[in-house]
Amino acid sequence: MTSRRVFLTGALAAPFVRRSAAKTGYSFAEIERMLERGDIRGRLSKDDLPTPALLLDLDAFEANVAKMARYLKERHRGFRPHGKTHKCSEIAKYLIRAGANGACAAKLSEAEVFARDGVSGILITTPVVGRHKIPRAVRLATRHPDTIFSVDNAANVHDLNDAAAAAKIQLNLAVDLWIGRRTGVPPGEPALGLARLIESLPNVRLAGIQAYSGPASHTVGFENRKRVSEEAMLQAVETRWLFEKHGIPCPLLSGGSTGTYNIDSEIEGVTELQPGSFIFMDLDYNRIGGRDGGEFRDFANSLTVLTTVISRPADDIAIVDGGLKAFSTDKPFVPVAKNLEGVTYSWAGDEHGRLDLSGPARSLKLGDRVEFIVPHCDPSVNLYDRIFCLRGERVETAWKITARGMSQ
Amino acid sequence: MTSRRVFLTGALAAPFVRRSAAKTGYSFAEIERMLERGDIRGRLSKDDLPTPALLLDLDAFEANVAKMARYLKERHRGFRPHGKTHKCSEIAKYLIRAGANGACAAKLSEAEVFARDGVSGILITTPVVGRHKIPRAVRLATRHPDTIFSVDNAANVHDLNDAAAAAKIQLNLAVDLWIGRRTGVPPGEPALGLARLIESLPNVRLAGIQAYSGPASHTVGFENRKRVSEEAMLQAVETRWLFEKHGIPCPLLSGGSTGTYNIDSEIEGVTELQPGSFIFMDLDYNRIGGRDGGEFRDFANSLTVLTTVISRPADDIAIVDGGLKAFSTDKPFVPVAKNLEGVTYSWAGDEHGRLDLSGPARSLKLGDRVEFIVPHCDPSVNLYDRIFCLRGERVETAWKITARGMSQ
Repeated sequence: MTSRRVFLTGALAAPFVRRSAAKTGYSFAEIERMLERGDIRGRLSKDDLPTPALLLDLDAFEANVAKMARYLKERHRGFRPHGKTHKCSEIAKYLIRAGANGACAAKLSEAEVFARDGVSGILITTPVVGRHKIPRAVRLATRHPDTIFSVDNAANVHDLNDAAAAAKIQLNLAVDLWIGRRTGVPPGEPALGLARLIESLPNVRLAGIQAYSGPASHTVGFENRKRVSEEAMLQAVETRWLFEKHGIPCPLLSGGSTGTYNIDSEIEGVTELQPGSFIFMDLDYNRIGGRDGGEFRDFANSLTVLTTVISRPADDIAIVDGGLKAFSTDKPFVPVAKNLEGVTYSWAGDEHGRLDLSGPARSLKLGDRVEFIVPHCDPSVNLYDRIFCLRGERVETAWKITARGMSQ
Repeated sequence: MTSRRVFLTGALAAPFVRRSAAKTGYSFAEIERMLERGDIRGRLSKDDLPTPALLLDLDAFEANVAKMARYLKERHRGFRPHGKTHKCSEIAKYLIRAGANGACAAKLSEAEVFARDGVSGILITTPVVGRHKIPRAVRLATRHPDTIFSVDNAANVHDLNDAAAAAKIQLNLAVDLWIGRRTGVPPGEPALGLARLIESLPNVRLAGIQAYSGPASHTVGFENRKRVSEEAMLQAVETRWLFEKHGIPCPLLSGGSTGTYNIDSEIEGVTELQPGSFIFMDLDYNRIGGRDGGEFRDFANSLTVLTTVISRPADDIAIVDGGLKAFSTDKPFVPVAKNLEGVTYSWAGDEHGRLDLSGPARSLKLGDRVEFIVPHCDPSVNLYDRIFCLRGERVETAWKITARGMSQ
């Protein structure tokens, strides 16, 4: 009988849920229809959203963008933020209004979406390879001649040139350098060979160099990171001068990340940076360490996932409705509750998160909301169709994640 | 000069790409338009698909479904496969045609999509809590009176009853048991208390018991798994008999998983199983071990992700276009190439995978396709909008993953 008595006491002690059940809830489909009918400004608050929901703190986001734009402008560096982070045409256009040269896109399909929605100055940072994609690349460039494609292979350059010739256009190519662990041709002579090939062909032209060092971006400790990034980027700069020495103009050297924005912008010869995560930030970037020691807090955490407590199996356990499908799990750490002490998240399958509670957090009730900073922003955003943009507690707008799933 | 000579030789030695560039590639948007215009049967082959693409081997899928349906029918057990695995209304309906009682849905929003598309007999396995969702639950049940909702909390039962009373309907509730690590009320007396409460209220009625043991499903080794699952499910069976002993009819006891299909179906009192992954299989399930030792191979791997080699930075390295956004990364192991020896995948960021090559795999060329079995099927499927259904190399159809992203 004891356990039943405890249980019924728990039931009587949950006035929050009883009281709130009278109001109406919206599904995402209903919110979509509200968005189609016009502005939702003022009609929805954070508390009205079905969870899990992806949230953007607009004040923090705008401050992040303004800070990065001002920082790079003062150092006379261009700024082509990476769209793979947000996959959102509205954000890409916001960044251009804030001074960006355009947007990087990881893949052709992401670029197609951005271009369709009016984003200019797109640089595709991954090689576009094979019969499936080259005709599409040519169609994209026909409509958007300022698009730049990254290349790391001579056969691929020939393919692009042939397809461009058939369409009677010229394609802008950037030589992608192997200074990280992903794609690229080795810096120096091999890169020069590729640049010469581009110069020798009629329907492609050299726009510059694409140089991204994945390992540098997340190296922990500022001095370590500076060493790793400089080692990578100086090879890119030397390759740029090598091109110029051989009479091949190379006006663009694009690279760098959120983690190296205050490193690469000091390197002579790097013309523009392509950071992505600074607009949102995440736990992975917080932990890399700032210039002055401590956590990397140059930009604020503007991105969160809102969840709801849906079960309270014990005094010190709460279950929320966000699991492996609400957060990307590619990092070895877990979501961290925002503005709530005494909560430790652990994965509990595809649909749930388990919270171990201590102190005041033990008062969490069924139906209460818990907001989390995500371990890794890019693939977490890619799980959602909308990002709800908050001004304080009000939903000011909801941007569509237009390139969600566009990894092709 | 050496490196440049090697480089140009490499270019001349890539006839595959040169030859194939003449054909036309389809974007997913173009394939969507083909699908809207009618059947794509016979028009597309696997080789036409832009990558990364989610593939289903229809022969293997159909055999998996037939095997499970036959197995459970022979043992006089019902079958309500879990829709969180496929999130695809077409697959849910296929399973019902194969004999399933309906479909489980993890969340309300998933159930809303299935119901809209004509799936009957939906059991929502996660409690539906709070003012955001209860009105929607009532709307769903008004249109689809056979829907069953899981509950583990008395306050929530009162909320559901009040909302159902206002709508002048009755809701079917299943008592969700805490026999795993997610949601539920403890078995025995606490569960009986909740069942009695349901019986005492006019607008809810007891449909039965929901009992899922997450830990059992993936316990490695058949005998270990049998022990863990029996320990969990026997508590559920005893709770069912306890209800009946107190005069509360309990016709339904739903639980079990792909990993325990041949364990739970032997337990007297379990009325139906709710496996999900058996239709697709994944590396996580392969490794749990079968009844007769070795890997768990009772069902075939029908689900894969197709990628393309987009860079060949070294003789023993290939880069493919599938990374953290193409595969779920919640398991501590990596995608495994299907029908290709000498390939070791490692993560290379959001957009790329790195393949370390040995033996014949070293002949992989730019543009070649590599197909991977996924570590964990459910959250991988949730990354895609379409699953391309293959009969051999031909695309027979492409099902929309209608509840993709529906984690609310």
